[in-house]
Amino acid sequence: MSEVRQKAELAGKAAAALGSLTTDKKNEALLSAAKALVENSEAIIAANREDLQRGRENGTSESLLDRLALNQDRIAGIAEGLRQIAELPDPVGDVLETIDRPNGLHIVKQRVPLGVIGIIYEARPNVTVDAVGLCLKTGNAVVLRGGSSALSSNRKIVEIIHEALATTAIPQDAVQLIEDPNRSSVDEMLKLNGLLDVVIPRGGSSLIQNVVQNATVPVIETGAGICHTYLDATADPEMAAAISLNAKVQRPSVCNAMETLLVHQDFAGQHLADLAERFKDAKVELRGCDATRNILPWAKQATDEDYATEYNDYILNIKVVSNLDEALAHIASFGTKHSECIVTADGQNAARFQQEVDAAAVYHNASTRFTDGFEFGFGAEIGISTQKLHARGPMGLPALTSTKYIIHGNGQIRQ
Amino acid sequence: MSEVRQKAELAGKAAAALGSLTTDKKNEALLSAAKALVENSEAIIAANREDLQRGRENGTSESLLDRLALNQDRIAGIAEGLRQIAELPDPVGDVLETIDRPNGLHIVKQRVPLGVIGIIYEARPNVTVDAVGLCLKTGNAVVLRGGSSALSSNRKIVEIIHEALATTAIPQDAVQLIEDPNRSSVDEMLKLNGLLDVVIPRGGSSLIQNVVQNATVPVIETGAGICHTYLDATADPEMAAAISLNAKVQRPSVCNAMETLLVHQDFAGQHLADLAERFKDAKVELRGCDATRNILPWAKQATDEDYATEYNDYILNIKVVSNLDEALAHIASFGTKHSECIVTADGQNAARFQQEVDAAAVYHNASTRFTDGFEFGFGAEIGISTQKLHARGPMGLPALTSTKYIIHGNGQIRQ
Repeated sequence: MSEVRQKAELAGKAAAALGSLTTDKKNEALLSAAKALVENSEAIIAANREDLQRGRENGTSESLLDRLALNQDRIAGIAEGLRQIAELPDPVGDVLETIDRPNGLHIVKQRVPLGVIGIIYEARPNVTVDAVGLCLKTGNAVVLRGGSSALSSNRKIVEIIHEALATTAIPQDAVQLIEDPNRSSVDEMLKLNGLLDVVIPRGGSSLIQNVVQNATVPVIETGAGICHTYLDATADPEMAAAISLNAKVQRPSVCNAMETLLVHQDFAGQHLADLAERFKDAKVELRGCDATRNILPWAKQATDEDYATEYNDYILNIKVVSNLDEALAHIASFGTKHSECIVTADGQNAARFQQEVDAAAVYHNASTRFTDGFEFGFGAEIGISTQKLHARGPMGLPALTSTKYIIHGNGQIRQ
Repeated sequence: MSEVRQKAELAGKAAAALGSLTTDKKNEALLSAAKALVENSEAIIAANREDLQRGRENGTSESLLDRLALNQDRIAGIAEGLRQIAELPDPVGDVLETIDRPNGLHIVKQRVPLGVIGIIYEARPNVTVDAVGLCLKTGNAVVLRGGSSALSSNRKIVEIIHEALATTAIPQDAVQLIEDPNRSSVDEMLKLNGLLDVVIPRGGSSLIQNVVQNATVPVIETGAGICHTYLDATADPEMAAAISLNAKVQRPSVCNAMETLLVHQDFAGQHLADLAERFKDAKVELRGCDATRNILPWAKQATDEDYATEYNDYILNIKVVSNLDEALAHIASFGTKHSECIVTADGQNAARFQQEVDAAAVYHNASTRFTDGFEFGFGAEIGISTQKLHARGPMGLPALTSTKYIIHGNGQIRQ
């Protein structure tokens, strides 16, 4: 039997036991794992050094090496993340609905774990621990397939977690790491219907698209965001500047950063030149439509391809629109249904924008950068779902659960 | 452009308009369609006659022809179904959660339509109308791909619905019928990421498996059910007989019917012989384990293949188990996580069974046949989900919705 199938089966057996554990037992295990990771920092850093060494030999970029690198501080932060997950309320067992039927049946809809969750991710060892914490807290077993260039780190981390679990109520088999570095092990995971209840990809768009295109198991798609901010005619200029600058430059590399600024022609005429200076000062390259370039002749020409690009960088498209309808139409054409914002003093326009824009998060007078499980107060985040099934937008712990109907009868039969 | 892509795009444009319609407007359209179907019964029956004729020439079985056949009564029933959907509460716009953040952000989580729903089904024209009703009520556009042997009926039904919609607020393009009878049109639908928000297969297991195995768009899997009833040592003999007979013979062809009866050895010793007589009287063929055949020497031998088969027929496996653990283990091995039942007077065993069995619906002292949207009081049913993502068990109208976060700010930016 292949490594993938064998480990998924072991995870499945562990999942059956995990479902009935109390919250306290699960929290004890998370805290025990957190403690073990800190105590074994040196061993983790040594393993991580092997990965970094191999990465440098293979010419991995500095930014990727930085995401791979672990040190005492980072490990402490990762362990602290586990402790925070332990603090959060446990959604498992929550009663979502009770139904009493005329025939006397009493139906209880209850949250239960999903079962076995596959996580496919890049060379970021912090995701290993984060995924373990989120899955175990919600009573799920987890099958991890991290980027092969973090294999030494992941192996050591999972070894330490396994040791920590040995003295807790959570079976060690609830955490499985796929060590096969070949792409075929990912492909196999994606077809494990009946063994994996869901696969969640975490990473860049090529990783996510590979999962979406090839999985036969259910997937929660996360990721891509071409987000817009629309400055309406009545937008307060200072608020408009603050929100749009924040949406672009506070962290350009993330999915909820703005890629295109839509500007009402009246606002543009009065304020776009000033606003553009502030983007320039922030080192943002501007690409504009014809009307934008009438005001900012130094800006590059924006093409439809630009409007369809997630830059994740210090580049911004600007398009002047004649009214709200044109802004809505642009977002409908180029948006990825992630996060969209209107800045306006006009309540009716705000209401229409928030009603008509089809996206996970639609803002009035606030930065799109808030689309995040922590910012929404969930206390944790598995990712930001960009699909409409199961979960949409930032996903907290409940997104890692399913439901079950428990029906109490006294002999009812169907007529 | 292919028919499939063209119609999906039209549906997508219609969906944008549908999302903001009031419940009244949607209900008016459903009632108008119901009226038109009844008024045009003759034309539908004439079109249906063409399908039946073609079916007979192609040697279609009588049972399939019966599912395909329409008459005045059936059309009246189908139209009545639309009126019932109009009566149901509209889930769209429901506020599921509000969050107030320390920074003043006010976050509202609201139900919204999924968008465009693809329905892939067999030669059952009633599903055409049912799917249209459920999707339109929830503000979704629908792309229908019914079995090609019902094409004349479906074409006429959709033509009548289009005419009826012309005088309502729902755009005609919200209902699309794929007429291409080739399998390739199904394959194309399954890959329409970005145009279809979900595909729901409705039909037999080969249809469902084709969708699950080949779709890259999100799928809600419905269908297969290998359901068990476990008669515990303390089960009341009369209740045990009533529930197990009902679960098997009230309608053997459906997914929530019982396929295997698990019997505690103590119960079996006292009552299995009597119970078996009642199954025999009901024309049920019995296949048993060795212990069963000690009591019922005339029963056939049950194999593991039998335990793994959804008969949907007057055939039942019986297995004698020595305790609850063995029953749970059998269900974990052979169940399809659909509907499972324990009959017992022992509250602890009932609680353990309902906690540990991993299935959409777990019954204590009631027939598995109740797993159904109407029986659960939902007033409608799109199907019974056998997956754990998004919806599990009987799906009412809320299963055809997604959510959106609407965020009200006054200039918040992320630090």
